[in-house]
Amino acid sequence: MQYQFSNRVSQLKASEIREILKSTGAPGVISFAAGNPAPEAFPTELIERISADILRSAPIDALQYSVTEGYTPLREELKKFCKARYGIGNENDDLIIVSGAQQGIGLSATVLCNEGDTVICENPSFVGALNAFRACGANLVGVETDNDGMIIEKLEKALVENPNTKLIYLIPNFNNPTGRTMSIERRIKAYDLAKKYGVMILEDNPYGDLRFSGEDVDCIKKYDTEGIVIYCGTFSKVLAPGIRVGYVLAPAPVTAKIVTAKQTSDVHTNIWAQQLCHRMLTATDFNKHIQNLKDIYRRKCSLMLSCMEEKLDKRIEYTRPEGGLFVWCTLPEEVDMLDYCKRALEAGVAVVPGTAFLADKSAPCHSFRLNFSTPTNENIIKGIDILSQIKL
Amino acid sequence: MQYQFSNRVSQLKASEIREILKSTGAPGVISFAAGNPAPEAFPTELIERISADILRSAPIDALQYSVTEGYTPLREELKKFCKARYGIGNENDDLIIVSGAQQGIGLSATVLCNEGDTVICENPSFVGALNAFRACGANLVGVETDNDGMIIEKLEKALVENPNTKLIYLIPNFNNPTGRTMSIERRIKAYDLAKKYGVMILEDNPYGDLRFSGEDVDCIKKYDTEGIVIYCGTFSKVLAPGIRVGYVLAPAPVTAKIVTAKQTSDVHTNIWAQQLCHRMLTATDFNKHIQNLKDIYRRKCSLMLSCMEEKLDKRIEYTRPEGGLFVWCTLPEEVDMLDYCKRALEAGVAVVPGTAFLADKSAPCHSFRLNFSTPTNENIIKGIDILSQIKL
Repeated sequence: MQYQFSNRVSQLKASEIREILKSTGAPGVISFAAGNPAPEAFPTELIERISADILRSAPIDALQYSVTEGYTPLREELKKFCKARYGIGNENDDLIIVSGAQQGIGLSATVLCNEGDTVICENPSFVGALNAFRACGANLVGVETDNDGMIIEKLEKALVENPNTKLIYLIPNFNNPTGRTMSIERRIKAYDLAKKYGVMILEDNPYGDLRFSGEDVDCIKKYDTEGIVIYCGTFSKVLAPGIRVGYVLAPAPVTAKIVTAKQTSDVHTNIWAQQLCHRMLTATDFNKHIQNLKDIYRRKCSLMLSCMEEKLDKRIEYTRPEGGLFVWCTLPEEVDMLDYCKRALEAGVAVVPGTAFLADKSAPCHSFRLNFSTPTNENIIKGIDILSQIKL
Repeated sequence: MQYQFSNRVSQLKASEIREILKSTGAPGVISFAAGNPAPEAFPTELIERISADILRSAPIDALQYSVTEGYTPLREELKKFCKARYGIGNENDDLIIVSGAQQGIGLSATVLCNEGDTVICENPSFVGALNAFRACGANLVGVETDNDGMIIEKLEKALVENPNTKLIYLIPNFNNPTGRTMSIERRIKAYDLAKKYGVMILEDNPYGDLRFSGEDVDCIKKYDTEGIVIYCGTFSKVLAPGIRVGYVLAPAPVTAKIVTAKQTSDVHTNIWAQQLCHRMLTATDFNKHIQNLKDIYRRKCSLMLSCMEEKLDKRIEYTRPEGGLFVWCTLPEEVDMLDYCKRALEAGVAVVPGTAFLADKSAPCHSFRLNFSTPTNENIIKGIDILSQIKL
């Protein structure tokens, strides 16, 4: 049979990162390509103990069908957490559990965008989100960013030029892939523009709790008096990505629609995992755990940056993130970036070509992404050393 | 803000069953409305032991990001299981893990159907699947069924009348909501028609392992020489629905597309749950567990049917399922079914109005669904007694 796939998915490609990660399985390749939490960042003993208690004390509750909105005690606890940690969430908002922030992003686009509607994103941005928008048949418009995040004048230009815009997608804290943080001025201005043009903001904050230096910057959601911000959080970076638990804090009519769509998607999120997250928040010193994560990532990031400082050709520019998992490197204009990445892989180091993160993948790009959370210290040193020997 | 939702989801309603289930939370209401496995059907001690071992022996593997296709050992084991149990799966097929069969159904429709394309289903059929098709913007066409399943002449008529049909959705074993089983003759004829008209079949088999009387009937997938059948299986009814693990066995180009779509949906299925399923299949006597489930459901079904036989007005007709979880009751034509269900709830018994399961919910319907797996024996007896006192 000659299979005919729907328009929405027929151009959709598997993430380039996944393809690269497949080749990094080869022995001897040091991977700076992943975005995985460090193995030492998992509180495995706590998880083992809590899980045992869940499955011993009320196993049926953890194994039976549950409600689509999510495990009520976890929803309540996360509302408190969002309020206490970020000052976000008001009486018009609701909070629901999703199967990882990826699902929150995908369902937000599903409920808001018809095929052909525009989603504006930072250029570059998280490839998983871009692919979710593509899977909805959305028209992706990337807006240039600098060290303070999305450039506001260019955002307004994009809004004017695309009156069918439904969503502005932003990762204000330690953007994936750049590691950059959007300034408070720009956050407020982006909010004002969203209000002015009647579009919603999707604020994705997977790394907000992993700030290992500098000062917190207010979430855009904190200024959401109009009910136009959908906020996505996740346990993937602060507990474990394999359990697939995230959450969406958004105006109640929007969460209600997302719940209806989620019901047709996976009914509800794994309930054992939701109970595990709830216990982590209420029955352990979660702040101490987060502090431990920050220490791990601060050290790993410092190590990578100091190796880069010492060894890399000075013509390679790179960001100095205050949190998150990634460093964004930019080659001199005359260097063919894809060729550089290919030669790096041949030399034994996997990095992600920056094109993967662009709204228009065929646009010129001289950057690539490095991850410092997954490799061991030894491999960070060795990997940067190998990169430093690649001819520009 | 006046929220504008996408066309795909704006007419989508939360499942009627969920709404009914909310009112069944009221104290004293006996629910025949759910579709949950019996509490005594969960092998809680085995799950507790296996989970502890997973989280003790290789916790990072169970908690870290994983591949979208699913946990490789589980995929391999399920391929063997499908072959041994049903004789399905050939060299052109692949098997992937999804977050419950619901996700397999939703993603199958997502990759095959553009908005406006037709999905043909049994009338009545599983409301979760119907809503997933609606969420894709599909045009739903219900085909009449009788005691042997979908009526083949009417299927062909629907195929002729809807040349944009992409998918025929069938639950051949113990259909939800009717409990009926499609005959082998009709399965083969439906396959031949799908082949003739160049459409795919989505064969949903959540209850196949729960046959508690009569003889197995071959899966349609067994006859799939053309590569036109997508088969969905699940652990929800044979292990635990709360863990959200299902699988799709389909021609490799189709599973590849589903994997790409799944990546944008939830990245991958909870990996702890996948490992748990794998250990259940390989390290326990899973057949014995299934046998135990069959015994439980045979007894519960017999009890409900014998109470109905004894007490219910003879004008109420009902199916006598050989497996699954549901009995389908049909009232005399002159009785207003929705009013009957409302009076049943007021009297203390929740049932699901048959309209919930129709492609066209406004079509006339005199039937309702009863579930025998969730209520206790005592409540089965009591609930049928209450129903028998409701005036027709």
